[in-house]
Amino acid sequence: MMSRGFPAAEFSARCARAQALMAEHSLAALLLTTEPDVRYFTGYLTRFWESPTRPWFVVLPAGGRPIAVIPSIGAPVMARTWVEDIRTWRAPDLTDDGVSLLIDTLAEIAGDGAVGVPMGHETHLRMPLADFARLRQVVNIASDQGITRSLRLVKSEAEIDKIRAACAIAGRAFDRVGEIARPGVAVSQVFRRFQMLCLEEGADWVPYLAGGAGPLGYDDVISPAADAPLETGDILMLDTGLVFDGYFCDYDRNFGIGPVDPRCRDGHRRLIEAVDCAMEIARPGATAADLFHAMDKVLTGGAGGSDAGRYGHGLGMQLTEWPSLVPDDHTELVAGMVLTLEPGVEIARGQVLVHEENIVIREGAPERLSPFAGPELKEI
Amino acid sequence: MMSRGFPAAEFSARCARAQALMAEHSLAALLLTTEPDVRYFTGYLTRFWESPTRPWFVVLPAGGRPIAVIPSIGAPVMARTWVEDIRTWRAPDLTDDGVSLLIDTLAEIAGDGAVGVPMGHETHLRMPLADFARLRQVVNIASDQGITRSLRLVKSEAEIDKIRAACAIAGRAFDRVGEIARPGVAVSQVFRRFQMLCLEEGADWVPYLAGGAGPLGYDDVISPAADAPLETGDILMLDTGLVFDGYFCDYDRNFGIGPVDPRCRDGHRRLIEAVDCAMEIARPGATAADLFHAMDKVLTGGAGGSDAGRYGHGLGMQLTEWPSLVPDDHTELVAGMVLTLEPGVEIARGQVLVHEENIVIREGAPERLSPFAGPELKEI
Repeated sequence: MMSRGFPAAEFSARCARAQALMAEHSLAALLLTTEPDVRYFTGYLTRFWESPTRPWFVVLPAGGRPIAVIPSIGAPVMARTWVEDIRTWRAPDLTDDGVSLLIDTLAEIAGDGAVGVPMGHETHLRMPLADFARLRQVVNIASDQGITRSLRLVKSEAEIDKIRAACAIAGRAFDRVGEIARPGVAVSQVFRRFQMLCLEEGADWVPYLAGGAGPLGYDDVISPAADAPLETGDILMLDTGLVFDGYFCDYDRNFGIGPVDPRCRDGHRRLIEAVDCAMEIARPGATAADLFHAMDKVLTGGAGGSDAGRYGHGLGMQLTEWPSLVPDDHTELVAGMVLTLEPGVEIARGQVLVHEENIVIREGAPERLSPFAGPELKEI
Repeated sequence: MMSRGFPAAEFSARCARAQALMAEHSLAALLLTTEPDVRYFTGYLTRFWESPTRPWFVVLPAGGRPIAVIPSIGAPVMARTWVEDIRTWRAPDLTDDGVSLLIDTLAEIAGDGAVGVPMGHETHLRMPLADFARLRQVVNIASDQGITRSLRLVKSEAEIDKIRAACAIAGRAFDRVGEIARPGVAVSQVFRRFQMLCLEEGADWVPYLAGGAGPLGYDDVISPAADAPLETGDILMLDTGLVFDGYFCDYDRNFGIGPVDPRCRDGHRRLIEAVDCAMEIARPGATAADLFHAMDKVLTGGAGGSDAGRYGHGLGMQLTEWPSLVPDDHTELVAGMVLTLEPGVEIARGQVLVHEENIVIREGAPERLSPFAGPELKEI
């Protein structure tokens, strides 16, 4: 069994990289409030973030370990991480839910210096706006200058190991879809059973499952499951983001429920061809946009994609992360970036097929993290 | 099988109530960004919120239906709701991720009027801070004056039906814990198998599971599972928040793995007694604080609770909602409020037992939504 968590050296390396960038940008501290940002620097892993009640804060000083400013209910779990300075209040406190404690901590750590907060694309602030307004009155809040993004964009080998493990679990579950999907079974029941397969094969939990089914594909890829039954000739798509030790996989598979329309078989081959074309150029120095264009040439002849907006994205502690495989994202690929390749193709008006694989950028050819599907659509 | 979703009348009633309060507070519109707030007024249900990449906006005007300002990938699902005015952009757009479209919509709907945004306790803004700063330059942003809170605090019968269904599913899963938990089985494996039981019994998905195990209870109640095996004499606690049609249950059960220490059996009886005392007074007109004190008298003799911070909370579209059962929360109970009663007791230094049930406030005695546990700890 793979060991859980990371050694302290992993976290100290992350903090040192952040602190070097903070020095460049004259930031006296970083203030982090979301689950992945808090976990990235501390290792604090709990599903309790599902409760929106309590705010959680981590302050990364210019040097040394992060400081946790958290509700006391979280202290035992935080004490098992590498964090030594854990400051708690008894939450929820309806008049002062950690704000004074956070202000005191920031005054001590940052003085009048700038405190960087993630503000850019794909970020949000996980604390009440009214409390943030109180904070801004006395703390010199600034942008984090994209530091958290730039760090989390490139994964360590230890992180990649966990994503690879998540991908393998999903692969074993996808191999067993024939056990649960057949004509007459409600799609909602297939979804339920597929989540059970993911768990049985080793997922810790299954935060994401979407999909669709129809004779010429599906009209969206983010729906919860319908109670309508599968019919012979349907294409069934399952797209899962399961978690192993805090890291996601995110890929899908299409299945023919018996023989399907030849347009779907052709479409599936085109999706695999698009993935192959992206794999050919997915090397350090190429950009996210390059991958988009390589796939779009196969899929639309270069017309510029679809309403889904992109052909893949980053992957790690979240189901989707930076970068985006879109024409405007010129992020340069770097060894260690974990990406999904997620081409889609229209089979009939409003009916699409989407395929997705997970890879990691390497110095040479990229490494496949998901067990790549072949061009022939699997019929079950 | 229970029907899915709600009739349009449910949503129009919610909007009308909000709009009456908006008129009182001179708000020209509400701007909503989070999953539950968007879903509350539109019925938009998808697990795609697991992806943090794209912002989603709903504007509630002074009259009429809400307006969706959303990424085009969500248009097909939104089109199946009662919302008619759906404005989309192709996201992710790295330079303007819906901000201009939102500004134009708010200018059209609210003019120079105040646009209310949830800012209080247990809320956050789900959009990048830099984009919100752009918005604030041209839109008259104000607090929503707690309107979303006050609406969501009291559930309709249709909402209560879904929470009751979620509770029943968890009850059937808890009844089967003897199938999966025994000495020598890793707690992490019990967690995995318990999630499978929840799905098999009808959960759509299982966003939350926490718990612990030990001979005198557990040192925290929010941990992910350890790989250590259960031992004879352990108390095993499983606390689940599973979802049925977008609504949560949230309650736990304690199990003795064989015979347990008498202090644990006594502690469990005390927890049930605390719940009984709260049930005696859980009537319209009592407050959240009253429930706290009723339980605390049994648990600590009135010393004022523990580090967990509270003895229960609201429940609905989220695992935890307002109010909090704490001494400072003077929210008056109203028929239709769904609450958890969640007393905890210390068995030994740092080792606790926690018990939880789900109820809905009625004109007379409260209705039990979870199948209440008896005072004797169940041994398996």
